[in-house]
Amino acid sequence: MTDRIREFLKNRKDEGPCLVLDLDVVRDNYHAFAKALPDTRVFYAVKANPQPEILALLVKLGSSFDVASIGETHAVLAAGCAPDRISFGNTVKKESDIAAAFKLGVGMFAIDCEAEVEKVARAAPGSRVICRIHCDGTGSEWPLSRKFGCEPEFATDILELAHKSGLIAHGISFHVGSQQHNVEAWDRALASAAAVFRTCGERGIFLAMVNLGGGFPARYLRKTPKLESYGKAIFRSLRRHFGNRIPETIIEPGRGLVGNAGVIEAEVVLIAKRSPEEDLRWVYLDIGKFHGLAETIGESIRYPIRTGKDNAEKVPCIIAGPTCDSVDVLYEKTPYPLPVSLAIGDKVLIEATGAYTSTYSSVGFNGFPPLRSYII
Amino acid sequence: MTDRIREFLKNRKDEGPCLVLDLDVVRDNYHAFAKALPDTRVFYAVKANPQPEILALLVKLGSSFDVASIGETHAVLAAGCAPDRISFGNTVKKESDIAAAFKLGVGMFAIDCEAEVEKVARAAPGSRVICRIHCDGTGSEWPLSRKFGCEPEFATDILELAHKSGLIAHGISFHVGSQQHNVEAWDRALASAAAVFRTCGERGIFLAMVNLGGGFPARYLRKTPKLESYGKAIFRSLRRHFGNRIPETIIEPGRGLVGNAGVIEAEVVLIAKRSPEEDLRWVYLDIGKFHGLAETIGESIRYPIRTGKDNAEKVPCIIAGPTCDSVDVLYEKTPYPLPVSLAIGDKVLIEATGAYTSTYSSVGFNGFPPLRSYII
Repeated sequence: MTDRIREFLKNRKDEGPCLVLDLDVVRDNYHAFAKALPDTRVFYAVKANPQPEILALLVKLGSSFDVASIGETHAVLAAGCAPDRISFGNTVKKESDIAAAFKLGVGMFAIDCEAEVEKVARAAPGSRVICRIHCDGTGSEWPLSRKFGCEPEFATDILELAHKSGLIAHGISFHVGSQQHNVEAWDRALASAAAVFRTCGERGIFLAMVNLGGGFPARYLRKTPKLESYGKAIFRSLRRHFGNRIPETIIEPGRGLVGNAGVIEAEVVLIAKRSPEEDLRWVYLDIGKFHGLAETIGESIRYPIRTGKDNAEKVPCIIAGPTCDSVDVLYEKTPYPLPVSLAIGDKVLIEATGAYTSTYSSVGFNGFPPLRSYII
Repeated sequence: MTDRIREFLKNRKDEGPCLVLDLDVVRDNYHAFAKALPDTRVFYAVKANPQPEILALLVKLGSSFDVASIGETHAVLAAGCAPDRISFGNTVKKESDIAAAFKLGVGMFAIDCEAEVEKVARAAPGSRVICRIHCDGTGSEWPLSRKFGCEPEFATDILELAHKSGLIAHGISFHVGSQQHNVEAWDRALASAAAVFRTCGERGIFLAMVNLGGGFPARYLRKTPKLESYGKAIFRSLRRHFGNRIPETIIEPGRGLVGNAGVIEAEVVLIAKRSPEEDLRWVYLDIGKFHGLAETIGESIRYPIRTGKDNAEKVPCIIAGPTCDSVDVLYEKTPYPLPVSLAIGDKVLIEATGAYTSTYSSVGFNGFPPLRSYII
């Protein structure tokens, strides 16, 4: 929460839930990454929050961009980014989208299997490709599945195919899992990456880059390690596995750049007890899983929620969204303590909601409009 | 799949995944409900698919409407519906939305706790209220949680408060759970409803209506009982619990009216094996959880998927969506058999996707546009 957001909300006239995001916080976060990892270029993961004002600020600060689609490519170019600062990081791409991005000047693509190499070779000849390897994501709040990345032992064959197909086998990428709390999580993946560098070298293919991915956490209720600790741990691992031939590195923070920059203001619509034996209250907000808070799935991310009554006694509450959908419940397995004096009509602030909220919002489920956002 | 949809897709020029919905099927479904439950009024659950053409057809056919929000109220009125054919069925409503609906002529509201009664009494004086009771949802593919509905033993107190507050205590509603396969599921809820009718009667409050809710299944891969069996079972239960004083009844089908009317056409973007030891393939489509197929959460709903190669040998596949989000996987716990000859670029048809798809779609997660729909 910043003074600028507090001031904005005080003067806001519109009705309904909204996200307010403070660009000053994004700027501070960008500088913090640059300081913690001074030799590493930042590629903002646009999917975290693609609002034009955020993209424009990051272009100005010198950031590069990780895009997931041709739609995001257009958005980043529209914000004034040069195409050579874009990495098309989705390993699942339509050939027509690869061709369209290539035509716009994009020259770096993620791949993780032979079929994807073939598509890139046809649609974006001569481009640089980064092979994504699988990483188990231990220590992350949202471990990644097997959906992306080949097993490290196949990366060399895949990169060799790229090389033989006229592409530039440029490097290795991995993702240690979103909201990663273990600063050492990069070590095992860097060991695998270094092994691929060696086996590629033996075949005369010289890789240049390691994409360290994202996973840098935003601070929710649980404490997170400082960014410097990540930077130091990663640098130690690079030294350990690459010796004095440390490759070029990039990172792809999304949540880490914008997560703590945003606050959602919502309203209490109803408070009810479902059974007189239980002390548990159901608190219904005007925002839920379908309008921005999708990341409460599995209750893994526990957003800080502030009310105007936080000094009052607190009671355990189940927090639910406003739709007629029974899945639209935010916190139930682990009830959330909220003030006993909380009342219908009270505003609540859901903090650290700058990432993965407004774009996850549905177009209009149950007739509620998508989450409105204000970038200040 | 209908000939009209097949013809439409053959001639379609646009790119990208889409939903095509055949209004003839909606019409047939409406008549099937009218036939199976001849004494019961149909209130279409707008949230299943609020496309204006669907609403306009149902207005013409004589349907009434169950709305979840003021947004859906506006949509139904815009389609030509008279406000006395609208039930505001969400038990979680802002007082300002109740007032807005009341001003538009809506006079029937769902409630399930005292706080909601107080809101309706202030914002929509003299309206009819229906008290939702909790039902355990056994037999449903998507059981409802405790989010909605009071325990039956409190319904009488809540309805008495409504009565004393100048509202018309009109009836009882419940929901047996979405995609309900057990035709007898209504029996226990009707027993509870009849008990509330009796205890209300003892206090001089005479209820008139039972809202039997939705839950009527659409046919996905699993066979569903015929609509007539539901109608007969419900009628038997009404006789059993209400004797010769059978109340007015309404139903709120959503999925049952539009589910099987729609087909999503998607494209195979990538096929990859993640490990050479496994036979399992990963098949990536250009549509996933964030762009219309949210109901694959938990893999409870298994849509029929047709390809142009269904006579070929089939192999188990994990089916995933196109986003960079590892949660965006449709079927993994129980792999889905797809043709061994399925190839990148092939079209697939995901059937029975007329309900809870287009509106669940995100506004643009990962830069992919919301699901496009065509109503024919």
